[in-house]
Amino acid sequence: EMLRILKQRKFPVSKLTVLARSARTLELDGEAYQIQEVSNEAFAGQDIVLFAGTEGEKGAAVTYSKIAIEQGATVIDNGADFRLKDDVPLIIPEINADDLKQHKGLIANPNCSTIQLAMALAPVHKAVGLNRVVVSSYQAASGAGKKAAEELRSQAEQLLKGESVTPQEFSKPLAFNLIPQIGSFQEAGYSTEEWKLVHETRKILHDPKISINATTVRVPVINAHSESVYFETRRPIELDQLKSLWDQAEGISFVDEPNFTTPNEADGKDEVFVSRLRKDPESPQAFCCWVVSDNLRKGAALNAIQIAEALLK
Amino acid sequence: EMLRILKQRKFPVSKLTVLARSARTLELDGEAYQIQEVSNEAFAGQDIVLFAGTEGEKGAAVTYSKIAIEQGATVIDNGADFRLKDDVPLIIPEINADDLKQHKGLIANPNCSTIQLAMALAPVHKAVGLNRVVVSSYQAASGAGKKAAEELRSQAEQLLKGESVTPQEFSKPLAFNLIPQIGSFQEAGYSTEEWKLVHETRKILHDPKISINATTVRVPVINAHSESVYFETRRPIELDQLKSLWDQAEGISFVDEPNFTTPNEADGKDEVFVSRLRKDPESPQAFCCWVVSDNLRKGAALNAIQIAEALLK
Repeated sequence: EMLRILKQRKFPVSKLTVLARSARTLELDGEAYQIQEVSNEAFAGQDIVLFAGTEGEKGAAVTYSKIAIEQGATVIDNGADFRLKDDVPLIIPEINADDLKQHKGLIANPNCSTIQLAMALAPVHKAVGLNRVVVSSYQAASGAGKKAAEELRSQAEQLLKGESVTPQEFSKPLAFNLIPQIGSFQEAGYSTEEWKLVHETRKILHDPKISINATTVRVPVINAHSESVYFETRRPIELDQLKSLWDQAEGISFVDEPNFTTPNEADGKDEVFVSRLRKDPESPQAFCCWVVSDNLRKGAALNAIQIAEALLK
Repeated sequence: EMLRILKQRKFPVSKLTVLARSARTLELDGEAYQIQEVSNEAFAGQDIVLFAGTEGEKGAAVTYSKIAIEQGATVIDNGADFRLKDDVPLIIPEINADDLKQHKGLIANPNCSTIQLAMALAPVHKAVGLNRVVVSSYQAASGAGKKAAEELRSQAEQLLKGESVTPQEFSKPLAFNLIPQIGSFQEAGYSTEEWKLVHETRKILHDPKISINATTVRVPVINAHSESVYFETRRPIELDQLKSLWDQAEGISFVDEPNFTTPNEADGKDEVFVSRLRKDPESPQAFCCWVVSDNLRKGAALNAIQIAEALLK
């Protein structure tokens, strides 16, 4: 997805090196990429190094980012290992590109579910502040990797034939089912994915006081995450002002009722779609909305490339 | 489902009459039921009349409940037409069976998504009161009827073969997708399903002051609804007290971490499953949990038969 986006956005690459655990040739959209085996020496002479990051184990940046930085590169890491470190900026360019000024060689790309939440909340937070956020996610299989998305398809096929299924990538079957656990359970019973939403959103918005309550759920969707978001603002705002904030926000597509966005419609798109905006019937400063985005694009690779673009500015 | 549950629970039926728009024979679990054509005369001599109710059009109770009551029957209606009328009790037997005393011939069965929410909240409400509830639902296709559940299966089959799909029962494709609209959009942009959660829950709990914010979403699950529920209590309560409330509550199965319940696991079961209970990290009186139940059983037919059982007591 990173290679695809570099090409789509005509990123000014003078020399592209693709690294993986072992050398091979990758065919992608009709183009062949020679993948080299990763080694300490492979980072010499690179201006920007993008680490793809992995869920469930330490990302490649843990092993290689120090070496890459010492050799003069700026590292953008999509993994979770460095996101909350004080000296590592956690960046969504539309929101906090200014934080890039403080980087010491390593910049972190936020988690997919955080990016779309923060994108939707940032214009509101900037205008009137946020007291409280309650978010319930509906996360696609692709967020757990390519194998997980394939497993969802094959599970569905097996179940439709009346066969039983044995989950591999998930703890329980996902096809025609839901799994209310993403990552492992941590402090206070919240999962790693739920804590990411709390801590990363606060860091990106520079506001440790926002109260964020998250429930993250894997759903049988191939790609694109959705979030049901309830939020209470610090100062009053009217519904129309909220709409115009989102209409003007870079990277947001606001969809007014009676229309709304489904994950299939967001799949392959760059924007974060905000729809189903409603005012709480009881609380004058509470609202809710439905936020959908392609977790592999804006939720991961696109945001990483946008960070690289911001570095060039 | 009603016929099935009458039999499973050995409901004391001396004469069973099954009515529909046209006469036919129904084979169910190896038993043949003679269905008679519905008419005004068909209700003579019945003690209890159960209307199955329909979504999207007026239920049979609109046409026939008055006649049935005049002929001496007590009517239990699963449709939405009478639920909010002042002189119609809206009953979940575990919660407000006492309201049956006020009935004037017609008793309403709540909506599926309301039943499992109210079941989970009632013990908490009784113990310490509730200020605010924020609920996001994950509702199965079967809630929109048998055809809708079949459409989900056939859509999934077509998509897996690479074919395109044309939705019939839903406004957009549901397989490998989500539809954040259930019912039609009404006042303030909330859907009919979302308003049902608000008004029905308040009526059942006898508490018009609870602030309820709902987002209802159709998910590609065949059967059993799930809800991500955030709630703020009026008076303080500890996590352990909440657990013991649910452990003791009739009709609730509390599942402690690290375990949790998926919709597939609740399919075919009678209980409302409460799992993933967590205390909000910031607010001492806020909590969240994950509530799953079979929408065709406790969410509809089972609750209706339980109302009939309560009438016999």
